[in-house]
Amino acid sequence: MADRSMIFPKFEFQTRCSRIQAELGLRDLDALLLTEAADIFYVTGFLTRFWESPARPWFVIVPREGAPIAVIPAIGVDLMGRTWIEDIRSWSAPDPRDDGITLLAETLREVLPVTDGAIGMPMGAETALRMPLAGYNSLCAALVPHRVVDGTGAIQRVREVKSEAEIAKIRTTCAIAGRVFDRMPDLAQRGLPLDQLFCRFQAELLHEGADWVSYVAGGAGQGGYGDVISPAAAEPLATGDLLMLDTGAVREGYFCDFDRNFAIGPASDAMRRAYDILFAVTEDALTQLQPGQRAADAHRILADGIRRRGGQPLGGRLGHGLGVTLTEWPSFTPLDETELRAGMVLTLEPGMEIAPGCIMVHEENIVLQDRGPILLSPRAPDQLPEIL
Amino acid sequence: MADRSMIFPKFEFQTRCSRIQAELGLRDLDALLLTEAADIFYVTGFLTRFWESPARPWFVIVPREGAPIAVIPAIGVDLMGRTWIEDIRSWSAPDPRDDGITLLAETLREVLPVTDGAIGMPMGAETALRMPLAGYNSLCAALVPHRVVDGTGAIQRVREVKSEAEIAKIRTTCAIAGRVFDRMPDLAQRGLPLDQLFCRFQAELLHEGADWVSYVAGGAGQGGYGDVISPAAAEPLATGDLLMLDTGAVREGYFCDFDRNFAIGPASDAMRRAYDILFAVTEDALTQLQPGQRAADAHRILADGIRRRGGQPLGGRLGHGLGVTLTEWPSFTPLDETELRAGMVLTLEPGMEIAPGCIMVHEENIVLQDRGPILLSPRAPDQLPEIL
Repeated sequence: MADRSMIFPKFEFQTRCSRIQAELGLRDLDALLLTEAADIFYVTGFLTRFWESPARPWFVIVPREGAPIAVIPAIGVDLMGRTWIEDIRSWSAPDPRDDGITLLAETLREVLPVTDGAIGMPMGAETALRMPLAGYNSLCAALVPHRVVDGTGAIQRVREVKSEAEIAKIRTTCAIAGRVFDRMPDLAQRGLPLDQLFCRFQAELLHEGADWVSYVAGGAGQGGYGDVISPAAAEPLATGDLLMLDTGAVREGYFCDFDRNFAIGPASDAMRRAYDILFAVTEDALTQLQPGQRAADAHRILADGIRRRGGQPLGGRLGHGLGVTLTEWPSFTPLDETELRAGMVLTLEPGMEIAPGCIMVHEENIVLQDRGPILLSPRAPDQLPEIL
Repeated sequence: MADRSMIFPKFEFQTRCSRIQAELGLRDLDALLLTEAADIFYVTGFLTRFWESPARPWFVIVPREGAPIAVIPAIGVDLMGRTWIEDIRSWSAPDPRDDGITLLAETLREVLPVTDGAIGMPMGAETALRMPLAGYNSLCAALVPHRVVDGTGAIQRVREVKSEAEIAKIRTTCAIAGRVFDRMPDLAQRGLPLDQLFCRFQAELLHEGADWVSYVAGGAGQGGYGDVISPAAAEPLATGDLLMLDTGAVREGYFCDFDRNFAIGPASDAMRRAYDILFAVTEDALTQLQPGQRAADAHRILADGIRRRGGQPLGGRLGHGLGVTLTEWPSFTPLDETELRAGMVLTLEPGMEIAPGCIMVHEENIVLQDRGPILLSPRAPDQLPEIL
């Protein structure tokens, strides 16, 4: 890979910034303040695994006009200096007396009107405050009479519609995982403990080009697995197991998120039936989804399709956004009225019960285009693969 | 590995909980509310990579008396049910109308006094709010007349002193990384692009027993590297490079965090001198650190030791805590007055300039005991290793 500070040309970031600024205008916000890794990567291109250390807060300001400003710990100045960001302010962090708050408040005041400015921050669903709450409270107090208000939409409405360059990155990451899934019959032998398979699977993803593997989950059990978020147990794969592996591998900051199912030994009729149903409802979504529908419509297509074919859909969501984090909004639930727009990268993730406590989950990654979905993950086989 | 819901016996978690409750008593808090992955793992044993998805908030309440209560998305009930936690409440998340806030407020009210209860939350340095700020504001409003206040110390003073069982876990993870570093002369051949070395390094960590590799950083450059947080570039290793690799591998939820340096080809005098200084000041710390000192004393030992030997210490911190996150408080800076206590697991991370823009950083992991530090990482070689 090339220098990761050059993942995209400057133009890509300028466009993102202009789109955020248009959203700020619509919402009458004077600036957007970002604290989370994904948002900061999105605006600046600043890519590092150093976020794994919770020690220091990081801030990026997108003013209503003009270029973004980074207010960051000194340890990040060198790397941020290799991005397109030119205005970089720093302090020696961690500082128990004042961990960047005074510097941040001063910087924000420079881009705000004289009085009554409105600073948006992500505060809604799927966001977090990646800074100490005490620091946030100090910041709000220091900024009076300016207000800190909900600016979630100003970043989410922008991030959710991917550029062609972003779609290409996600397609590349999907292809990496696809190549490893293709070799699963060689990797997942009977008798192999599931935790060892998880390690092999991660190593193969790296070998195929992932920069890192942020997420691996899966399960294996007689006739089906119990859930999809547990770490692997040491139990060996056995004839009669249904095996599922799901991964969020990352290349150049962009995730894939899809799974594959395998029968260890001959597939049971119940497994086959469930697989066929999930494959078919995914086909439904691939032909029926279109811009202008709601996230709830995607849920309806998948859930109704499972029921119509005699299955019982799982509760919870049946798909979601994808991009610079493993999962992004919207959520395919009956309650999510987010509009589906062309350029959204989404997962189709129908799941159903095979038997009480035994489930199967199928997942593909797509980009929604004007004419409908295009697959980014290589399509799963149309019949449940058996590892004999 | 065994079932990860049984990483420790129940007694370990009961002890943690009692220690937190004692801290709550000292601070006159009626309950502690936790939202971050590490805190929730620490209290419950709930271990999953599913935290990678920002879609849903998770909550654990430690009341002043009685057992902890988990208030979590339905998708986690099965896995949480395999921990020692018995009182598990859930909702179907994500729910755009009310993502657990009403359920959480109701549950908190059960453990609070009739009026004027105080709920502590981590709000201080090295914490974040892993839930939407809008949800936090709704929660505070719903809880009136009860108050949400800073409860950082109630968890940090407990987590920072590790049990023997925790120390054993960290030692195991350190040994995994140590075995891979030992093989670096075979892995890091001249001409190999650094990004490919990063991939090999991660794969080897998995092969040696890491469950996952949450952090890899490093650098390579003629005479020294520029920073320690950048992703790897595609440039091939060349004679005259100083190579550093640093990892936070994870096994059973516990991190290591140490690095190793290598000269590609014969080491220059400047590299050797820097290595010798950093090795020597680490020895100073290994003999001089003791409980009752402050984090600032550790900084002084390392920084003064570098200066006394003619080097220029890097700014920022020169070591930190370690455990269920890659880095934990305290920070070895001149400003951090946190008391060093027996049972703390810490990194010694002295760094210095070799030449302008060229640095070297050395790192070891220790546990502080009554008589002083014990190494958890296998000690680095006493001379800079050369890969010839």
